[in-house]
Amino acid sequence: MFIHKKPLQFEAQPDRSDPLVAKYLQELIGGQYGEMSVAMQYLFQGWSCRADEKYKDMIMDIATEEIGHVEMLATMVARLLEDAPVEKQQTALEKDPVVGAMIAGMNPQHAIVAGLGPRPADSVGNPWSGAYIIASGNLLADFRANLNAESQGRLQVTRIYEMIDDQGVKDLLSVLIARDSYHQNQWAAAIKELEDQEGTILVPSTFPRDKERRDIAYDFYNFSEGEASKDGRWASGKALDGEGDYHYHTKPKVEGKEPKLKPVTPKMYGTPKDVK
Amino acid sequence: MFIHKKPLQFEAQPDRSDPLVAKYLQELIGGQYGEMSVAMQYLFQGWSCRADEKYKDMIMDIATEEIGHVEMLATMVARLLEDAPVEKQQTALEKDPVVGAMIAGMNPQHAIVAGLGPRPADSVGNPWSGAYIIASGNLLADFRANLNAESQGRLQVTRIYEMIDDQGVKDLLSVLIARDSYHQNQWAAAIKELEDQEGTILVPSTFPRDKERRDIAYDFYNFSEGEASKDGRWASGKALDGEGDYHYHTKPKVEGKEPKLKPVTPKMYGTPKDVK
Amino acid sequence: MFIHKKPLQFEAQPDRSDPLVAKYLQELIGGQYGEMSVAMQYLFQGWSCRADEKYKDMIMDIATEEIGHVEMLATMVARLLEDAPVEKQQTALEKDPVVGAMIAGMNPQHAIVAGLGPRPADSVGNPWSGAYIIASGNLLADFRANLNAESQGRLQVTRIYEMIDDQGVKDLLSVLIARDSYHQNQWAAAIKELEDQEGTILVPSTFPRDKERRDIAYDFYNFSEGEASKDGRWASGKALDGEGDYHYHTKPKVEGKEPKLKPVTPKMYGTPKDVK
Amino acid sequence: MFIHKKPLQFEAQPDRSDPLVAKYLQELIGGQYGEMSVAMQYLFQGWSCRADEKYKDMIMDIATEEIGHVEMLATMVARLLEDAPVEKQQTALEKDPVVGAMIAGMNPQHAIVAGLGPRPADSVGNPWSGAYIIASGNLLADFRANLNAESQGRLQVTRIYEMIDDQGVKDLLSVLIARDSYHQNQWAAAIKELEDQEGTILVPSTFPRDKERRDIAYDFYNFSEGEASKDGRWASGKALDGEGDYHYHTKPKVEGKEPKLKPVTPKMYGTPKDVK
Amino acid sequence: MFIHKKPLQFEAQPDRSDPLVAKYLQELIGGQYGEMSVAMQYLFQGWSCRADEKYKDMIMDIATEEIGHVEMLATMVARLLEDAPVEKQQTALEKDPVVGAMIAGMNPQHAIVAGLGPRPADSVGNPWSGAYIIASGNLLADFRANLNAESQGRLQVTRIYEMIDDQGVKDLLSVLIARDSYHQNQWAAAIKELEDQEGTILVPSTFPRDKERRDIAYDFYNFSEGEASKDGRWASGKALDGEGDYHYHTKPKVEGKEPKLKPVTPKMYGTPKDVK
Amino acid sequence: MFIHKKPLQFEAQPDRSDPLVAKYLQELIGGQYGEMSVAMQYLFQGWSCRADEKYKDMIMDIATEEIGHVEMLATMVARLLEDAPVEKQQTALEKDPVVGAMIAGMNPQHAIVAGLGPRPADSVGNPWSGAYIIASGNLLADFRANLNAESQGRLQVTRIYEMIDDQGVKDLLSVLIARDSYHQNQWAAAIKELEDQEGTILVPSTFPRDKERRDIAYDFYNFSEGEASKDGRWASGKALDGEGDYHYHTKPKVEGKEPKLKPVTPKMYGTPKDVK
Repeated sequence: MFIHKKPLQFEAQPDRSDPLVAKYLQELIGGQYGEMSVAMQYLFQGWSCRADEKYKDMIMDIATEEIGHVEMLATMVARLLEDAPVEKQQTALEKDPVVGAMIAGMNPQHAIVAGLGPRPADSVGNPWSGAYIIASGNLLADFRANLNAESQGRLQVTRIYEMIDDQGVKDLLSVLIARDSYHQNQWAAAIKELEDQEGTILVPSTFPRDKERRDIAYDFYNFSEGEASKDGRWASGKALDGEGDYHYHTKPKVEGKEPKLKPVTPKMYGTPKDVK
Repeated sequence: MFIHKKPLQFEAQPDRSDPLVAKYLQELIGGQYGEMSVAMQYLFQGWSCRADEKYKDMIMDIATEEIGHVEMLATMVARLLEDAPVEKQQTALEKDPVVGAMIAGMNPQHAIVAGLGPRPADSVGNPWSGAYIIASGNLLADFRANLNAESQGRLQVTRIYEMIDDQGVKDLLSVLIARDSYHQNQWAAAIKELEDQEGTILVPSTFPRDKERRDIAYDFYNFSEGEASKDGRWASGKALDGEGDYHYHTKPKVEGKEPKLKPVTPKMYGTPKDVK
Repeated sequence: MFIHKKPLQFEAQPDRSDPLVAKYLQELIGGQYGEMSVAMQYLFQGWSCRADEKYKDMIMDIATEEIGHVEMLATMVARLLEDAPVEKQQTALEKDPVVGAMIAGMNPQHAIVAGLGPRPADSVGNPWSGAYIIASGNLLADFRANLNAESQGRLQVTRIYEMIDDQGVKDLLSVLIARDSYHQNQWAAAIKELEDQEGTILVPSTFPRDKERRDIAYDFYNFSEGEASKDGRWASGKALDGEGDYHYHTKPKVEGKEPKLKPVTPKMYGTPKDVK
Repeated sequence: MFIHKKPLQFEAQPDRSDPLVAKYLQELIGGQYGEMSVAMQYLFQGWSCRADEKYKDMIMDIATEEIGHVEMLATMVARLLEDAPVEKQQTALEKDPVVGAMIAGMNPQHAIVAGLGPRPADSVGNPWSGAYIIASGNLLADFRANLNAESQGRLQVTRIYEMIDDQGVKDLLSVLIARDSYHQNQWAAAIKELEDQEGTILVPSTFPRDKERRDIAYDFYNFSEGEASKDGRWASGKALDGEGDYHYHTKPKVEGKEPKLKPVTPKMYGTPKDVK
Repeated sequence: MFIHKKPLQFEAQPDRSDPLVAKYLQELIGGQYGEMSVAMQYLFQGWSCRADEKYKDMIMDIATEEIGHVEMLATMVARLLEDAPVEKQQTALEKDPVVGAMIAGMNPQHAIVAGLGPRPADSVGNPWSGAYIIASGNLLADFRANLNAESQGRLQVTRIYEMIDDQGVKDLLSVLIARDSYHQNQWAAAIKELEDQEGTILVPSTFPRDKERRDIAYDFYNFSEGEASKDGRWASGKALDGEGDYHYHTKPKVEGKEPKLKPVTPKMYGTPKDVK
Repeated sequence: MFIHKKPLQFEAQPDRSDPLVAKYLQELIGGQYGEMSVAMQYLFQGWSCRADEKYKDMIMDIATEEIGHVEMLATMVARLLEDAPVEKQQTALEKDPVVGAMIAGMNPQHAIVAGLGPRPADSVGNPWSGAYIIASGNLLADFRANLNAESQGRLQVTRIYEMIDDQGVKDLLSVLIARDSYHQNQWAAAIKELEDQEGTILVPSTFPRDKERRDIAYDFYNFSEGEASKDGRWASGKALDGEGDYHYHTKPKVEGKEPKLKPVTPKMYGTPKDVK
């Protein structure tokens, strides 16, 4: 169960209206790594959590914070659109090149569909998708998804920070960047804690390793000419899971044969078998 | 440029036809964390790589390996479908409960659309989407995406391994599980190497930290009653980035005000402003 | 800003595990008219609300309630999947027709992807989409969207209620049906209030009617032979907006000409213009 | 069965070519509430209709009219694109800021994919989706969907009407606005007729109310601090269904417990249960 | 403008209810190559047609026929669902294996969402998408798309024909197969006519060939070991466009260099350039 | 199995950076008929191929070539973005109309998400979809899909060729246009070979024609007034399959009745049957 608190956690007030900046911020609302994604991802992970109570509580705390992040960004987008040049655009575009560029660059759905409000979509207008998120039932796997999401997310916020000039928007982005810093620190800590307890970096940790082909489980296969790929931590020395040594093969191992498929029933009306 | 080698890298031969197993393997072909995803993700990361040559070479080697993984799974699915009960199903379903369950559970597009071949789709039939993948231009961010993908991927393969009995399919899964083991080991090593060189775990490492709200960059906010979430590595002690200390707040900090939006031009025909 | 309360608002406990029922409930979580849809729809409407405070507060109250509905359903699905027959299914399917039907009918992503947890998707596995929802900036328009959503939603819940036998699940559905009853009553009341204040049933109420073609604004055009469509409230008498009279035309009015398009620049390489 | 009549029902001729206006009109062709949506929605409702003949006939008449609306808009878009600045754009953009804004703002698929013709997509390029529409088998539910669609649709047309200056396009929009007026009037009348006959405003009307939790079927729960939401028709007095009284709760009723999920089989390889 | 005729063009009456057959027929309604696709594809081609009048008329005639095909299939699906086992399924499934398979195999949205009516979706439940269709402004290109669509379409209908036993459904499929025969014959004839008039098989025919790299325009590159691909009409002899000779290269020509990308501005926060 | 060769097959170097051209080229990477589509389409056709070896080898050779085409285009897009005006855009846009148009027209995800690299998406930002491609198991059907894809593809490349001025990009497009020429020539030859061997142009060739309604298999139905559609190769004379004669009907044949659907169980809660 959730309760709404009316104040925003942090302020969301731009210096001035700007529909292009509004379009960019949509990436942080409804993009693959936007706040809708982390909010929903953490909610589904929390709701499915079968592990120790502290994990569920921690995940739900952060999920709940993230819904508030969508709220701050949605408010900011609504304000950035407030004075967008939406009327008689054909005349306006011809009169002033700056207004013309605004009109050309604006997301038309911000006006036509949302009446100058935010959209559940990314910066090019793709609607947010449940396919962006993951809740697998394995927390180590999912915390890696989370660390990735917070890494991509902070990266995107810093880029927008440099792309714009509006100090009010930047103030909100400074908050989001800081929270993404914490969340990277936080998922990294939770990952470390789980790896230590599970005794391996491999997900899932409990699959019996004698059921996998361990003889090929530490091999790097060079699938190109030249061996630049040999010069990395992944190509030699002790593997990070502590159970084997990396091995670099200059050519891929090949065990299989050229596959020949049998024909299927002619009632599937595939290519007739007497065709050469 | 790419060259095709006709042999499969590893063998892909089931013990017997089974359209349900074929349906499950689709998750590994065209699911969010299937082999199409890792292949395309690594290709786009490699093609965009502006970093040291060794990274591009390594990424492209693995990308190329993964296209071959799609090939092995596609071949396996084609073989699993070879003798599926596709003819006169209404009669067949009524005669034999085992056949009936096969018919009921089969992906109908395997027959109707693909003529008993694999589909570029997941286990419930969603077509593969470019929205599954990421190539951000920041390798540390992307390697975390990759480690996540290999973790979710290995997890899914181990689950299917337990869900089925067919030894031929399991032999291929053992290969894939082992390769996912290596790839987890490999991305983890590459991540460690980058973190060491960049001198922080934060992505991006180069954003000036005085531009973010550092005063809130180490705070955990408890958004619920009860403090189970306090009992973790993320709640106290030195942060993993080495630059601050985790701080647990029993209540969230609140700086913002309740947002009030201004009306917009009446030409957007929103709710009339004299409506109470 | 939001706060999480740990108890569910209402109980979510099935009598027994059943993966088919879990699959059905996904429609209520991530379907077009599921709880994710109403939660997100109301949140975006609330965040964009430029009308009187009472509307924003009311919308946000209900939005917040709905996030809790997703939570109850997600919990229920997790419990329904707890003992699903996921291991060695090929053997199991052949042994017992009831288990076989369970295996055939189960959503495979519930096991492979989510490890026996809920998915942000509908009952056939389509991921939830931002394209399901609307927040237009015009509350009368949006409250009609909401009344529709609660109508479709209650309809779907009552259908599942009849499709299943599990009393524990039905108890939760009884709660959801009652809340959907209230929400229909509530949006209908809000619609009535707005229509009364705006002085018309037409959305948007403020568009000057002399700018539309009022001469065709009350016409029903019969686009078929036979006039069964004439026998309804919409075909004659005073129109509900109180400004005109319905008029039934046995044939459609036609004002336009057969359209002939001009050729475009040959550099678009369309069909060559000398082709007959 | 359908017959095509060559004349457009109403004229579709712009004053001049303008690719930005063409982009905006795409929302009315292939957007969530565009003419493709209402056409397909009404067709599927008509084809599924099991109610009295007059409803099916009426729905099919309007569906058929709407296909003609797509035709008028498609023709208009083709004409708006006729003289778009598509050649040698890099030079053209640098020469003239007005042309530059046109080039920047144009939907590139109008040229590259469609050769200056309309697209089955919305104003930002999302392809039209079957997920936009509903045909539930319950006409009262569906007529509410229809009233919503015509409300959102008319709202969008009036916004574009104000955004542009071209009188020829506005003349067509005046037609569409008038038809949307009628269709709102018409669905409202049909809804009223059904509500009167079914004896309630609740969808579905036939679900036995003693199977729902009637004790919570008239409650508004305040999920925030402050009681602005109390000041509405929905918070007190006789409910619109005539069967109960609205009741405002300053806090939500809570019946549930904090959910604790059981562990599942270890063969799903979730988080190991000995992890703390 | 369109007119609806109430009779179906051909009869659509199954022998008995069967929800699995209903699920299969969805591929023909809302699949990639279903009747919604050909109807919408031909409509958009007709509406964009800038060529000789006879083409537009012909395309629109067929488009209009295809809307009627959707209608026949939608009617058939509604009838196939009429007596589906939707009530108290948990008990029903345990009692009778045949009913159990029906329940397991049924599309749950047919009941929950559509109330036993057709859906604008394919046989696995993916909603129909505007991305399935093409109207390019070049009729030769588009008629090839159409010939492909009718080929894939007829193939899918024949497969379903063999998968089922119901004679009533087969009678409708016999009609559709025959119409697809004609439409293949018809698009093939239209293609031949256009190729003859345009004087080449190449699309587009008017692009000046001296602007393409004609020296590589007739080469087959062998990208694998072994030369089985040499043994076809495409590998030697006069090319079908009559302007060159096919040439088989045992290895691909290579002109390019290994690509090295320059770094971009550090404000994009990519991988730092001092990372090795 | 695949091997990566580091050189590009052909060079990919623009004369100068231009983010609008980069946006256009995305259509050729991740659009419906872009190189990702042909690469994946041919791969799935090759992997499913149950016909003579020469076909599989040929398909795989071309598939492999096409992956290299994606690589060349991805490299080109990365270079076109290298000096895009991404910093402090609000100030930059106001200073210079040319830069303003660039900023307005640029795909924002090229900067925010990809850090100035290519995206697996089309020119308006829709992610690439597995729904674009087909591999049916019937090579004649699929080769028609391929001929269509290469026709649409070449058409799109020639359009972009004319839309831009950059000679370096045009040089790459000249290569792609030539390869598309060959591939049209090649699939046309393969189609001809198959049609000759199968002895008909109808797909599938093996379905017994006495099971279809041959009496309506050569009819053109005029679904409009006027008979312009009569004046084509498809309307009279010997059909291209050599088995019948085209027949033009001035009105469509009608065999069906007006469909009346039976009511379904009231437990689906459709419209009550006593509603008139």
